[in-house]
Amino acid sequence: MAQRGRRVADLDEEALIQRIAQRVPAEPTAQCILGIGDDAALLRPRSGHEIVVTTDLAVEEQDFVTARFAPRAVGHRALAQNLSDLAAMGASPLGFVLGLSLRPELELRWLDALLRGLRGLVHSAGCPLLGGDLSATCGPLQISITALGDVPRGRALRRAGARPGDAIWVSGTPGLAGAGLLAVLGSAARCPRGARQAFWWPQPRLQLGMRLRGLATACIDLSDGLLRDLGRLASASGVAAHLDSSTLPRRPGLELAQSLGGGEDFELLFTAPPRKTAAIARLAGRLELQLTEIGKVAPGRRVLVDGKPFEGSAGFDHFAGASRERLTRRRPHV
Amino acid sequence: MAQRGRRVADLDEEALIQRIAQRVPAEPTAQCILGIGDDAALLRPRSGHEIVVTTDLAVEEQDFVTARFAPRAVGHRALAQNLSDLAAMGASPLGFVLGLSLRPELELRWLDALLRGLRGLVHSAGCPLLGGDLSATCGPLQISITALGDVPRGRALRRAGARPGDAIWVSGTPGLAGAGLLAVLGSAARCPRGARQAFWWPQPRLQLGMRLRGLATACIDLSDGLLRDLGRLASASGVAAHLDSSTLPRRPGLELAQSLGGGEDFELLFTAPPRKTAAIARLAGRLELQLTEIGKVAPGRRVLVDGKPFEGSAGFDHFAGASRERLTRRRPHV
Repeated sequence: MAQRGRRVADLDEEALIQRIAQRVPAEPTAQCILGIGDDAALLRPRSGHEIVVTTDLAVEEQDFVTARFAPRAVGHRALAQNLSDLAAMGASPLGFVLGLSLRPELELRWLDALLRGLRGLVHSAGCPLLGGDLSATCGPLQISITALGDVPRGRALRRAGARPGDAIWVSGTPGLAGAGLLAVLGSAARCPRGARQAFWWPQPRLQLGMRLRGLATACIDLSDGLLRDLGRLASASGVAAHLDSSTLPRRPGLELAQSLGGGEDFELLFTAPPRKTAAIARLAGRLELQLTEIGKVAPGRRVLVDGKPFEGSAGFDHFAGASRERLTRRRPHV
Repeated sequence: MAQRGRRVADLDEEALIQRIAQRVPAEPTAQCILGIGDDAALLRPRSGHEIVVTTDLAVEEQDFVTARFAPRAVGHRALAQNLSDLAAMGASPLGFVLGLSLRPELELRWLDALLRGLRGLVHSAGCPLLGGDLSATCGPLQISITALGDVPRGRALRRAGARPGDAIWVSGTPGLAGAGLLAVLGSAARCPRGARQAFWWPQPRLQLGMRLRGLATACIDLSDGLLRDLGRLASASGVAAHLDSSTLPRRPGLELAQSLGGGEDFELLFTAPPRKTAAIARLAGRLELQLTEIGKVAPGRRVLVDGKPFEGSAGFDHFAGASRERLTRRRPHV
């Protein structure tokens, strides 16, 4: 353990860049023709494809707590939330750029574990690191990722497009990751089975997203809670959404309010006409994923649970009551 | 002034996103087919073009000091440094995504001025805001920008490509922005004419970059000082670079060490064969830009000034001596 105790401040900028490039090596891909080391990266899109671009921040004390979070999971989650946005568009990943703000006193082994977390997803998702920027900071660690993907022209999934009569579907178990966060923070009386795993290691549903092109009429990823994200999809589509709570995937110890309000799932929520039900069931089998029909799109504007507005928190807002600390604020509604 | 004193914490996340979208409105462009408001943005690249991607962070206390920097200039500079990377690749801007970490107590008028700074460049450079992410932070403000551009296939300018015999060219007056930073920080005995302007309002050389395709053999933008960035270009090209200090664009009050070491210029440094000299001179006239031949590419590896290694700091490193504060550290070498 020769590295024990070495810190970011012990390396200069070039050495840090080298360290990142070594630990998150770019697999050559047909689309990436110039990666780390120039003023910018160069991608050659496939002909007839559009480019999908998304960006997400992960900020210490807001999105993770270094004392309680495994750094490998922090790296995994930072990239996963971006790839989940690509999945929600039906896109195939092209690569990502990484902005890292590091405290000089951060231990290199913490940074290395973070990079291992990134590397795992880089490999499994086929999404190479294209470049980045480093800064010192005197405050919270911050990870800024922008991910790029491509999608055949005109075939991207959008939030708008749901039509009255469509079924509402969700992958996985909404709220499970939020329950896992509670357990990680030590504030849960019970932790449902699989909740910590769902929180630490969300799997962006890239294969599902790509195969929903032509099946789904609208799609969004679950990051801020089922009700809130369904509200966004319904609002973008100009429709109402009626959830049937009895159909929601549940686990012992996972309360209904958690299923409806817990964030961080990075599962896909989508709508599809009833005639696609059999195709979606086959897709679930092929991908070995749980896909559940949880309600119906209707005319109107509102999101109803069992026919009425849900009395409770509708999900997570980064700034509401921003004087309280963000991770703590998540507790009431998960 | 009904807004006076209102703070970020007075708005929820949706209201902040609205505010940003209103103040940095996306001009419709042929390439941007879906902007803010979905899981990701959608771009339709021109056929036969490659995509250029670059990312840069601007971190409070590292890159700007809220008490001394005009917020409009902070916004301008944050986008300008990204667009300068596109310029250095010879790319045309497609758009950018914005990550903002804001302290809840930040005044909205400060944020609004930052957004005005972004908006100015959005319009002049034709680079629309495609989307972004917001986070609260308990620490330094941070602006993370990823900019995208496109360039005809195979025609991007790179750092590699300079050949012995090529002339070394630079736009503008290297070191002038660094001298401006000293003046802004109040630590300059004399401030050369135009230095503050060069620091506050760097103009990314997008037109120059695009027109250098086919003329330049290698190109880099000046962000960390002439010697350091020339060293990077020479290293990527596997050549030596010999500067003639008598040819460097100078101003009264701008010392040689400042010309060689001062960062933040966001000018272009490029190499071209001697037979292109007349074409480059015509280009300078057409763009009303100062383009100066400052040296020669030679066989070897070293960067020499008047035939010998320069005794002094070679530019800016974000982490070297990171226990000292970054903006302060810039002083010795500019």
